Amino acid sequence: MNAFGDKWTFTSFGESHGVAIGGVLDGVPAGLHIDMEMIRAELARRAGSKTSPQPSSKERETGVSPRAVREPDEVEWLSGVITPSLEGRAGEGLLTLGTPIAFIIRNKDARPEDYEWLKHTYRVGHADKVYEQKYGIRDWRGGGRASARETAARVVAGSIAKQELTSKGVCIHARLIQVGAETNPAKFADTIAAYKREGDSIGGIIECRITGLPVGTGEPIFDKLQAHLAFAVMSINACKGFEYGTGFEGVTQPGSAINHISGGIAGGIADGSEIVFRCVFKPTPTTPKALKKLNDQMVHVKMVNRSDACVAVRAVPVVEAMAALALVQFL
Amino acid sequence: MNAFGDKWTFTSFGESHGVAIGGVLDGVPAGLHIDMEMIRAELARRAGSKTSPQPSSKERETGVSPRAVREPDEVEWLSGVITPSLEGRAGEGLLTLGTPIAFIIRNKDARPEDYEWLKHTYRVGHADKVYEQKYGIRDWRGGGRASARETAARVVAGSIAKQELTSKGVCIHARLIQVGAETNPAKFADTIAAYKREGDSIGGIIECRITGLPVGTGEPIFDKLQAHLAFAVMSINACKGFEYGTGFEGVTQPGSAINHISGGIAGGIADGSEIVFRCVFKPTPTTPKALKKLNDQMVHVKMVNRSDACVAVRAVPVVEAMAALALVQFL
Amino acid sequence: MNAFGDKWTFTSFGESHGVAIGGVLDGVPAGLHIDMEMIRAELARRAGSKTSPQPSSKERETGVSPRAVREPDEVEWLSGVITPSLEGRAGEGLLTLGTPIAFIIRNKDARPEDYEWLKHTYRVGHADKVYEQKYGIRDWRGGGRASARETAARVVAGSIAKQELTSKGVCIHARLIQVGAETNPAKFADTIAAYKREGDSIGGIIECRITGLPVGTGEPIFDKLQAHLAFAVMSINACKGFEYGTGFEGVTQPGSAINHISGGIAGGIADGSEIVFRCVFKPTPTTPKALKKLNDQMVHVKMVNRSDACVAVRAVPVVEAMAALALVQFL
Amino acid sequence: MNAFGDKWTFTSFGESHGVAIGGVLDGVPAGLHIDMEMIRAELARRAGSKTSPQPSSKERETGVSPRAVREPDEVEWLSGVITPSLEGRAGEGLLTLGTPIAFIIRNKDARPEDYEWLKHTYRVGHADKVYEQKYGIRDWRGGGRASARETAARVVAGSIAKQELTSKGVCIHARLIQVGAETNPAKFADTIAAYKREGDSIGGIIECRITGLPVGTGEPIFDKLQAHLAFAVMSINACKGFEYGTGFEGVTQPGSAINHISGGIAGGIADGSEIVFRCVFKPTPTTPKALKKLNDQMVHVKMVNRSDACVAVRAVPVVEAMAALALVQFL
Repeated sequence: MNAFGDKWTFTSFGESHGVAIGGVLDGVPAGLHIDMEMIRAELARRAGSKTSPQPSSKERETGVSPRAVREPDEVEWLSGVITPSLEGRAGEGLLTLGTPIAFIIRNKDARPEDYEWLKHTYRVGHADKVYEQKYGIRDWRGGGRASARETAARVVAGSIAKQELTSKGVCIHARLIQVGAETNPAKFADTIAAYKREGDSIGGIIECRITGLPVGTGEPIFDKLQAHLAFAVMSINACKGFEYGTGFEGVTQPGSAINHISGGIAGGIADGSEIVFRCVFKPTPTTPKALKKLNDQMVHVKMVNRSDACVAVRAVPVVEAMAALALVQFL
Repeated sequence: MNAFGDKWTFTSFGESHGVAIGGVLDGVPAGLHIDMEMIRAELARRAGSKTSPQPSSKERETGVSPRAVREPDEVEWLSGVITPSLEGRAGEGLLTLGTPIAFIIRNKDARPEDYEWLKHTYRVGHADKVYEQKYGIRDWRGGGRASARETAARVVAGSIAKQELTSKGVCIHARLIQVGAETNPAKFADTIAAYKREGDSIGGIIECRITGLPVGTGEPIFDKLQAHLAFAVMSINACKGFEYGTGFEGVTQPGSAINHISGGIAGGIADGSEIVFRCVFKPTPTTPKALKKLNDQMVHVKMVNRSDACVAVRAVPVVEAMAALALVQFL
Repeated sequence: MNAFGDKWTFTSFGESHGVAIGGVLDGVPAGLHIDMEMIRAELARRAGSKTSPQPSSKERETGVSPRAVREPDEVEWLSGVITPSLEGRAGEGLLTLGTPIAFIIRNKDARPEDYEWLKHTYRVGHADKVYEQKYGIRDWRGGGRASARETAARVVAGSIAKQELTSKGVCIHARLIQVGAETNPAKFADTIAAYKREGDSIGGIIECRITGLPVGTGEPIFDKLQAHLAFAVMSINACKGFEYGTGFEGVTQPGSAINHISGGIAGGIADGSEIVFRCVFKPTPTTPKALKKLNDQMVHVKMVNRSDACVAVRAVPVVEAMAALALVQFL
Repeated sequence: MNAFGDKWTFTSFGESHGVAIGGVLDGVPAGLHIDMEMIRAELARRAGSKTSPQPSSKERETGVSPRAVREPDEVEWLSGVITPSLEGRAGEGLLTLGTPIAFIIRNKDARPEDYEWLKHTYRVGHADKVYEQKYGIRDWRGGGRASARETAARVVAGSIAKQELTSKGVCIHARLIQVGAETNPAKFADTIAAYKREGDSIGGIIECRITGLPVGTGEPIFDKLQAHLAFAVMSINACKGFEYGTGFEGVTQPGSAINHISGGIAGGIADGSEIVFRCVFKPTPTTPKALKKLNDQMVHVKMVNRSDACVAVRAVPVVEAMAALALVQFL
């Protein structure tokens, strides 16, 4: 199913190369002010364009998709919000009505013909084959629902959730902390560029810090805060792992050394300290280099220009969005 | 809330030192045969007693709780199953009726007085304090709901799920693969014993392998198989991380090297190959050694005999149970 | 499935002639005081014994089941509540812990042998046959889950919900307003007795009035207050209809005459005025008289002493319980 | 919340005079053929135009809204379906992809200025006031979400559900059986016209018959078939009651006379016979006549041309749609 959350329910829809992708966010209280600039900025981060209309040569080299630049994601609001001109009070901003917020982002330069060759081909490391096995039919145009494009709708909904959280003093901040073996952020761009030059790709680790969450947020037993954060983040394409607090590396430390580290959560419930979690993204599977490593199950393909060398770069705002959608359910 | 799953809904209840812990498993089809011996064996694994009435001296030394031995977990079935003597056909075994299966495990030697000192004390690394902050009231007897004892109910429900999965050809097998820095299983017992001797504790990593899951199991977008497995496993006390396939270590590998590793899941959907996931458990926080490291927020306490030096040992069947409960929702 | 509600989730379990029936009520906040006497009184109403240990000859005659008298329903609390003796402060009453409240009512004089003849027989107007068709197996002892006995668990959970609603100023009161064609309450007992003497049974209409519900309770579109009340009440065995406000009879009135009657709900949302709904219960199907009207699909059976001539009498507290469970989800 | 169903989840969105109304239908299997003509025909029935571009003078007189005629509801498909031209196989029809089906119906002649006077006015018998009390803000344009226009989205989703049910042999057929005191269908149009001429309105009763539902459909206890049908139908605006089988009138009949009538459902489960339910719709509250009956709480208003004299007429396809959405969850 394509819905997330039971208080603020976000339903995502749309094929990557159909008419539009979009979503419905239901359960948002009436009277919230939504900052459109903030949503645009988040979408630009996800698109890899960082609010600038054209990426710098540096940005291009470091894995920013040229597609993103050609397709500024523009949100069309269908319902659930009211603009000042209708209400008549100038300058009051966009307001939520308490009804479902529906929005779409049109697939402006959808070019199904670019993907014509995929019609009878499965890409390695992609969900093409398994989708066809599951559904018996598949929208072969650009990955359909499995495309990373679907995350744009998550970013819109997540930004609304984040704005609400921010207004309550909850701050969510994610950043890339590792690319391949490299942990120095100053060298990330160079590292990615190097892999790209070789026609290859590389993974990354994102760290997310959450502050201001009221003590007591979360539920014991099955609805633990960490379980819901893991569920939210692991639903992002290419994410292969989630950890918080002492994480996997903590395994080598004795209890006497680390038993004071809660990672912000005790028994599934926020304890008032900062929550720190990390997640890992695998490299893009479809790369030129992959062409040379054929196997018998999958047809390897040339790397289309539309893919990035390090998807973790653009996953940062998606991680924040999903964390926000997970947390807003508990408020 | 205390329910897991929407097809086979498992509701867990009971305080660790109240009358009983138990659960209700709703949604189980009628006519399934339940093997009681299998459930008893799983409970014994969780209790650390391995079906033997008394642990060997070796077992005791390696972190097996003496409590487990004194409290054989005996399941009382309240509803949802019918025994041969009622149906009249001898030897047919215990059958599910298609109605909710309710069961309890009595807390036979519940000794609230053992925990009297906890009434006005919070244990470090435990959820005692945060529970009281959240609820304003707390069952201080042995951790109440936050106690590891709650996992016994998970194991009962998980075993029923596992039996159903097994009958459909799905096999779930978890094992401890690392204790502290030690990765040789032959040395795990010694490693744990060494930490215990020092009044300390240590974490562990559990690996779980799943075979036989039909291609197409799982859903794209939010209900990805890995997201549900992560949600299930991260809900276990002391679990600090979940990864599958290439996991966190894969971050250093280029796409060309690892893009053929699916970890058994593509786009959130089982692709027919073996699913491999790992999860990490932190060390028990309440150890004698911890006594010496006081801080001002929490009162550190002596390690009660009831705790283990490496909780990961007994978490193995719980991981299997939660994986089974997660997977059975998709059948 | 056997759960009701997503905020206060009530899971019902138990076969009527198994070990016990019972339930788990999850989502109840911590710190509520539960009045046990009130629960006992509700159970006595449902059992038809009205707190008196023995029914009067009048009561017996008017359809009160002798079974109810022989089986005082005694609630055993398994979890989720704490008694004064444990907390140490005398006289404080039973308190909720914020954890799942599990309880059972043992089937003390379960006499499967009484139902032996049902093993290969379906009762007319009962769900015996359809259960066997659906599940392939059936607990033939007294109707299993389909038995009216299951409603005792609803009454316990509903009473807790009602106590919470009362403390918030919400009052729920149901009463029988019609038995057969009779609308004078003073003559209900005689009317029922007359049908019983003839070996027959008769239906009844219950009216329920709700006051004090805060304006704005309920949700527009699908989760309208009236839809949830209808869902709750129509889930009671033998209930054949639900109406509120102007109901079915309003069909003959022009808008100009009745457009001011809201029934307490506008657009699915409480408008602050009293909510009035009615529901109808059909007569007990298994009566002596039914014996004479055989058909080829069902074997008609003698009326067992355990059945009532007018089930609507005992349905009154069940209607209140279900209304309370429906409403408490919105608080 | 604005979602219905947990297997085929339908999320409705849109204000009646905003950009568009619409919905997302999630959970529909891949590979279903959707007949667009059937959806158009259902929408025309709901709009009161019966597929004919212009209503006859007779139709106009009998309560057909002129609005409906001016606003042919045209569905724009945003996702979840694929057309032959993309798949390349001519004549194959519209196919579902197994992904969420999103659609909108634009509010072509949305004229907020028509409702300008409502900005500071509440209509009697409408949800205007209670919405503002609940949300603190309200889209005053034509009733916002509370408008009957929202039901167009239900009809689209319901038609897809109905097509799937039909393909499985389940037939749902609703029809008007009573208007005011009139039960002769041949006189319905005249009866409605008479009320309309007097500036008044009148209620109606709709009967719905369901055949072909497999024995065993439905669940005992809370998820009884009748409870879900009642929940679905009672969520339609102006619906004041639901009954099935012997219904309210059965109250005067003894068990011996009616205990063989199941209404198609036994113990909450379909028994293979025809299911018959009825529901009642109150008259439109805003009528010219209502103007004369002022009270102090609500400002009475003139009947706008956009309202009908008997909303039950147009509710018929909505009842079918909601019944279909309720039933499709059980397949």
